[in-house]
Amino acid sequence: MKFVKNDQTAVFALGGLGEIGKNTYGVQFQDEIVLIDAGIKFPEDELLGIDYVIPDYTYLVKNEDKIKGLFITHGHEDHIGGIPYLLRQVNIPIYGGKLALGLIKNKLEEHGLLRQTTLHEIQEDDIIKFRKTSVSFFRTTHSIPDSYGIVVKTPPGNIVHTGDFKFDFTPVGEPANLTKMAEIGKEGVLCLLSDSTNSEVPHFTMSERRVGESIQDVFRKVDGRVIFATFASNIHRLQQVVEAAVMHGRKVAVFGRSMEAAISIGHELGYINCPKETFIDAQQINRLPANKVTILCTGSQGEPMAALSRIANGTHRQIQIQPGDTVVFSSSPIPGNTISVNRTINLLFRAGADVIHGPLNDIHTSGHGGQQEQKLMLRLIKPKFFMPIHGEFRMQRMHSQLAMDCGVPEENCFIMDNGEVLALSEHTAQVAGKIPSGSVYIDGNGIGDIGNIVLRDRRILSEEGLVIVVVAINMSEFKIASGPDIISRGFVYMRESGDLISEAQSIITKHLNKVMERKTTQWTEIKNEITDTLAPFLYEKTKRRPMIMPIIMEV
Amino acid sequence: MKFVKNDQTAVFALGGLGEIGKNTYGVQFQDEIVLIDAGIKFPEDELLGIDYVIPDYTYLVKNEDKIKGLFITHGHEDHIGGIPYLLRQVNIPIYGGKLALGLIKNKLEEHGLLRQTTLHEIQEDDIIKFRKTSVSFFRTTHSIPDSYGIVVKTPPGNIVHTGDFKFDFTPVGEPANLTKMAEIGKEGVLCLLSDSTNSEVPHFTMSERRVGESIQDVFRKVDGRVIFATFASNIHRLQQVVEAAVMHGRKVAVFGRSMEAAISIGHELGYINCPKETFIDAQQINRLPANKVTILCTGSQGEPMAALSRIANGTHRQIQIQPGDTVVFSSSPIPGNTISVNRTINLLFRAGADVIHGPLNDIHTSGHGGQQEQKLMLRLIKPKFFMPIHGEFRMQRMHSQLAMDCGVPEENCFIMDNGEVLALSEHTAQVAGKIPSGSVYIDGNGIGDIGNIVLRDRRILSEEGLVIVVVAINMSEFKIASGPDIISRGFVYMRESGDLISEAQSIITKHLNKVMERKTTQWTEIKNEITDTLAPFLYEKTKRRPMIMPIIMEV
Repeated sequence: MKFVKNDQTAVFALGGLGEIGKNTYGVQFQDEIVLIDAGIKFPEDELLGIDYVIPDYTYLVKNEDKIKGLFITHGHEDHIGGIPYLLRQVNIPIYGGKLALGLIKNKLEEHGLLRQTTLHEIQEDDIIKFRKTSVSFFRTTHSIPDSYGIVVKTPPGNIVHTGDFKFDFTPVGEPANLTKMAEIGKEGVLCLLSDSTNSEVPHFTMSERRVGESIQDVFRKVDGRVIFATFASNIHRLQQVVEAAVMHGRKVAVFGRSMEAAISIGHELGYINCPKETFIDAQQINRLPANKVTILCTGSQGEPMAALSRIANGTHRQIQIQPGDTVVFSSSPIPGNTISVNRTINLLFRAGADVIHGPLNDIHTSGHGGQQEQKLMLRLIKPKFFMPIHGEFRMQRMHSQLAMDCGVPEENCFIMDNGEVLALSEHTAQVAGKIPSGSVYIDGNGIGDIGNIVLRDRRILSEEGLVIVVVAINMSEFKIASGPDIISRGFVYMRESGDLISEAQSIITKHLNKVMERKTTQWTEIKNEITDTLAPFLYEKTKRRPMIMPIIMEV
Repeated sequence: MKFVKNDQTAVFALGGLGEIGKNTYGVQFQDEIVLIDAGIKFPEDELLGIDYVIPDYTYLVKNEDKIKGLFITHGHEDHIGGIPYLLRQVNIPIYGGKLALGLIKNKLEEHGLLRQTTLHEIQEDDIIKFRKTSVSFFRTTHSIPDSYGIVVKTPPGNIVHTGDFKFDFTPVGEPANLTKMAEIGKEGVLCLLSDSTNSEVPHFTMSERRVGESIQDVFRKVDGRVIFATFASNIHRLQQVVEAAVMHGRKVAVFGRSMEAAISIGHELGYINCPKETFIDAQQINRLPANKVTILCTGSQGEPMAALSRIANGTHRQIQIQPGDTVVFSSSPIPGNTISVNRTINLLFRAGADVIHGPLNDIHTSGHGGQQEQKLMLRLIKPKFFMPIHGEFRMQRMHSQLAMDCGVPEENCFIMDNGEVLALSEHTAQVAGKIPSGSVYIDGNGIGDIGNIVLRDRRILSEEGLVIVVVAINMSEFKIASGPDIISRGFVYMRESGDLISEAQSIITKHLNKVMERKTTQWTEIKNEITDTLAPFLYEKTKRRPMIMPIIMEV
């Protein structure tokens, strides 16, 4: 890295700074790069039709020979979803905890990449040694089992990456390893990269155990079927639901592709423990009384194609809402999903179900620590330099304030952007340069072939619609041979707009005849003439500006 | 109304039940209809390109001669925004408080409807008498001055409509008239229609006075410019900002069309009181030191074209963020706006401003009462029958529960849909039938010409894009005369997809030649052949399903 000195360690992110999602971080010392996570981002509404967003991997492709491995903090999509796309461009080994590896295997199999990839399962006390650097781990708590923080030892000093974390002192799985964090802090940390997601939340995040009590309450009180929707990856939550179901003599039917996969992987790897006969299939539901049935499903974010949305709008093949059903949203809506979650809740109420949702019911807790937990991490790790990661700029900024409150000098806090490189020596740190780090859009199976022009067109089409004018022109006689025909989509309903269309046709014909008199052979001129004639006419009549596409055929 | 008996009063809504927005209610006794509010709704994202939504006014048009008047509870867009569209279809007088009428006049002038409309300003103690019915008012508190509840006296009993309300015991303007509400309740109320918006909020809504204290705090602490964004219609909030500015020796510059209108109307009607020289224009800002400047602007919901968004992204003509600026969001994001509000906040932080927002700062309060206030209304009005209005189904349902808690029997609570008619006699109530009440979409200056087909097309275009295939065919010789040409928008970037396009062309040519051999003259057959050939080819190559439009020209 040309702008980093030979005795310096470079820290950078290709994604995950100033945004939620596509987390991808790198620690480089000379010719050794340790990659941490390779996430994907779900696009916001304005990226019309885009399925996913991944980072620009150019730097990694150019430096493939230096990458020692990709180390995974935990198995959420925004930390592992980019792996198949990255592996199509570079061939590198992957290290991760048991559950993360299970989920990655599944993913690589789907993409036909499993056989060619080297996967290493890590245990908390493993140390992965390279020539100049080494990588070790510490257990954290988060909303998915097997979450780790990562320590990269480099000659100038140790770099610590927290992954996503909260401090749950009474978790469902293993507790966070405070002792190890304290030891890491004692040994000395040059730079801490810490999860900023909830830096605007003043309170300590509620324990998963408390959610378990609320789940037990639901099962105690409800007489009808319990329809329980949550994030498939929250295996501890699933375990608590299954436990409560067993305790109250209920069977569990599972719906939704990701939920079925989670239950199957969770069961196989030992995270979900229950008698095998607990699970039933769709056919068996109706043979049991309502108070013996639990339905565990996807769709807690109101995703239109998920199981719960289809149950709510009456289009699910196997489940219809019946009186006495209680639907639990064990989730909180991600910004942008509020409206579709509300719609689903309304539909369920209308269909006659009772619905339990929202923070008042203690039926969900965040996977990220609030301010107190972020300060606890800072006090344990005691870094010299600090870089807030994960989360929007405002959260990075607040997290830096917390670091200062915990004694990190202001000039040692670095709020960085994707692509910026922090060059660290034993006593100094500075932003030294920038590597490529834009967003790459994935739509269908194309990677990166959707650019800004295509998106701009989609936006105009979506808001104003399209008007096509087709004319066949006899270029030897300078005469209109056929047309102009006018076709529109997304503009006005054509069957009811006959007058508008025929008026437009006659205006265009008049103008085209004039153009023909000039005996022009410039298609661009003819096309512009059509657009310039039609656009003001349509705007005057409709106050809309559809995309106008003149199509000229030479015959 | 055929399904209502001659001695019954009918109550119905054309909008405002099971939704937020387009509030439009009717109370009818025999040949007298009292209309309450005529609101507009701002569309959700899925209504691509639609500007507004209004109710279907068919029933009102058919019964225009019966309508005695349109009575306005308060001047918010979701209660007055439909007026110009309604007045183009029926000619009826309008009654409203001083501020609501001021805003309505403005609106009618813009639409060229002012001269032909009869407007009556009402005072709280007015009684508007018709032959069989009469209308009176009681003052409420809400986030806009001059808000009223409405009592419609009909022979079977009194119908009370609360409008939007909270109980603010220390408001900035006039307090709610509890005495009059108690008297109305004592006289006897047949049916209460009450605002359900915040029925899921357990606490009592914070007083506007408390917001005033927070505003004072901001002005006390901030040394640089204060940029204050809020809803233009919250005139009391504006007054509090102006007051604080004057008290701290600052001038006020106003930006955004609706904010300028609100300040001008508020000043004219006496709601905003301050020395005239308090207001400065854009040029004067830079002549004053930062601590003498307040900028009052629109955009607190992150609306992309509003003043604050343009300030945040650096495209405002007159205001650039400078170090020391403090931006106040005196608002809470409406669901659906969270992402754009977040984006604006991030941009402002990045530009170097400090930002004050969110519930922790007590810098905003809702205009709607929570559960305690809704119960207070129920206890004061003591209705026999109850109909929760305003708000989604889940809120209507919760509000009904509150009514039951306050002694209204379950069978006397009516959760209704738009269009449903409640027929009330002195002792009974029942849903008696349904009148037309769909949504009418406004896009540009067209009313109702955007239907579901146009919207469906916009959705496909926005997510998958469009591929046009143009062929000129010589129908006498059954030969391709020109083409096929392929043009796309919003699908792939054509300049980089030459191979895909030329391969598609040759496949279509091959198939078309076969079709020509059949000597068909059926255009539909030829078009279907093109679509059926191209769609699977494009899906296989791109995993996308663009809209395919075959265009055939006969030459």
